[in-house]
Amino acid sequence: MTETAADTWEQTRLLVSGPTLAALDRLDPPTRLACGYHLGFWDAQGRPDSATGKGVRPALALLSARAAGAPAEVGIPAAVACELVHNFSLLHDDLMDGDVERRHRPTVWSTFGESAAILGGDALLALANEIIAEAPGPTTPWAVRCLNATTRRLVAGQAADLQFESRTDVGLEECVEMAGDKTGALLACAASLGAVLADAPPALALGLADYGHHLGLAFQLVDDLLGIWGDPERTGKPLWSDLRSAKKSLPVVAALAGSGAAVERFRALYLSGEPLPEDRLEEAARLVEDAGGRAWAEQSADRESRAALDALAGLGLPEDVLRELTALTDTLSRRDF
Amino acid sequence: MTETAADTWEQTRLLVSGPTLAALDRLDPPTRLACGYHLGFWDAQGRPDSATGKGVRPALALLSARAAGAPAEVGIPAAVACELVHNFSLLHDDLMDGDVERRHRPTVWSTFGESAAILGGDALLALANEIIAEAPGPTTPWAVRCLNATTRRLVAGQAADLQFESRTDVGLEECVEMAGDKTGALLACAASLGAVLADAPPALALGLADYGHHLGLAFQLVDDLLGIWGDPERTGKPLWSDLRSAKKSLPVVAALAGSGAAVERFRALYLSGEPLPEDRLEEAARLVEDAGGRAWAEQSADRESRAALDALAGLGLPEDVLRELTALTDTLSRRDF
Repeated sequence: MTETAADTWEQTRLLVSGPTLAALDRLDPPTRLACGYHLGFWDAQGRPDSATGKGVRPALALLSARAAGAPAEVGIPAAVACELVHNFSLLHDDLMDGDVERRHRPTVWSTFGESAAILGGDALLALANEIIAEAPGPTTPWAVRCLNATTRRLVAGQAADLQFESRTDVGLEECVEMAGDKTGALLACAASLGAVLADAPPALALGLADYGHHLGLAFQLVDDLLGIWGDPERTGKPLWSDLRSAKKSLPVVAALAGSGAAVERFRALYLSGEPLPEDRLEEAARLVEDAGGRAWAEQSADRESRAALDALAGLGLPEDVLRELTALTDTLSRRDF
Repeated sequence: MTETAADTWEQTRLLVSGPTLAALDRLDPPTRLACGYHLGFWDAQGRPDSATGKGVRPALALLSARAAGAPAEVGIPAAVACELVHNFSLLHDDLMDGDVERRHRPTVWSTFGESAAILGGDALLALANEIIAEAPGPTTPWAVRCLNATTRRLVAGQAADLQFESRTDVGLEECVEMAGDKTGALLACAASLGAVLADAPPALALGLADYGHHLGLAFQLVDDLLGIWGDPERTGKPLWSDLRSAKKSLPVVAALAGSGAAVERFRALYLSGEPLPEDRLEEAARLVEDAGGRAWAEQSADRESRAALDALAGLGLPEDVLRELTALTDTLSRRDF
């Protein structure tokens, strides 16, 4: 991690942790316990923990306010709201996907039960809307609209992701669209929402959203790569869980879309309609690579990172903000965590 | 149903159906299908149906705008948003409660699957926030805050309701608080949100919220009574489903809180820790009545209806609005559906 990016994470944590914790205090005790556990502030018994996420979305939201020439503080409601929306979707996705582990800890549904996960997600979405609506200034209603249009895209992306699991004909284009909905939309929202609160000119807000969209695709490509070839110790997620649940992740769909002997072998293994046996997951991972899925995803991640930085080029950003956004982009597209 | 109240329902349907359908059109196709099915606009295959709910919350929201001297149309975003929030919570509650039937039709989770119910609820909550944020005028951010503070109370109420199922010591006071969260909060929100959008003086908005809170308690008391002694043909819900799942509904908790032989017999039957066998549900219903739970709930419903009307008394409402709110209150507290 570069020093600049490390500073960005640290600054973000300093500004955003307090308001996020204060927001949780508005919830009823059992829902607060489950939500704060999910966010990594405490363990399942409520004892202090420090297992919070990377904070990518809040970092983007604060930089977004600064990109519009405002102090980072102006972006705090956007930062908190985007992080809450992100965690609302994780809470519900973990339940729908049956994932038992996240950030090296058992997921909420597997610890507190399914109802607690549903209610916890609902509560985080409501809190996010409350927090963003409390931001002062004339653009607040517009910010609420951005946040909820984004939430609709998160829902659409997860609906597609689930539907893809049982389909054998998923195309690369619809898979990229799904990733745009699941990941690109909220990074685009975070990267522009601070600027919206700072009453930035539309061209700046849209340029920042474009940056966030490309960064989100790069981020998801790296995420999918780490899901197959990452170190579980670093990522905090069980290895091959996407392959185990027959997810149509980007490298997988790229592999299925190719041609040749490795592609045929991978199709026969992955599209059989049967759950993939535990002892063939390693073979499946190798076939994705042999079929070109890994190389395609790596090249695409590089291309999307460059497109993200290109989107920033003409926006006339303050020099320090451009430097931090560049460092953050580099860090996220080369991460192993 | 009185003629005045029938007019109110009809007017509400005319003004609110179109904008609600237009809101659904923003959703991805599978989520839109599940949500429109839940709202009663179409069947599970998307063929036209007319199984929509009573429309209590939208009716209140439109009357709320008129109470502030504005045209009903000013309240439309509040009406649509409250109805969407209501249905968001029904979708998720049906899944958490394992309820298989609502409004004479199979519930969404039992028709489209659990993930569709989770995503459908999420989508409706996001849509509600989008719609309310699109309302013009200076009070829009405040309206968003009201709506989401209400959503937090819905979550708290459902969390308490679920927790009560496994507890044997639920008190009447905490049970009334739970009903206030689950039902009172959203009726209070609906009854005031139209006035908020019409930029009403705070005293009027608060008075209307107070009315909605009492109406909500009366409504829930009647709902709980119908759940035990109602006609399933009229209510659209299976008889005794609350007793079957050991719900601590208001008449049940009132019965448990009493003393005497019938109370002891009911406690022994209902708090045994075992699921109530199908052939003892009728006996349980009779014991709730013998233990005084039915009479308490009926008297409380009457008292809350009167308190609701009392709350309207000093607000200086236009005469036609007062007449319609009074008719609506009477209809809801004497309904058998």
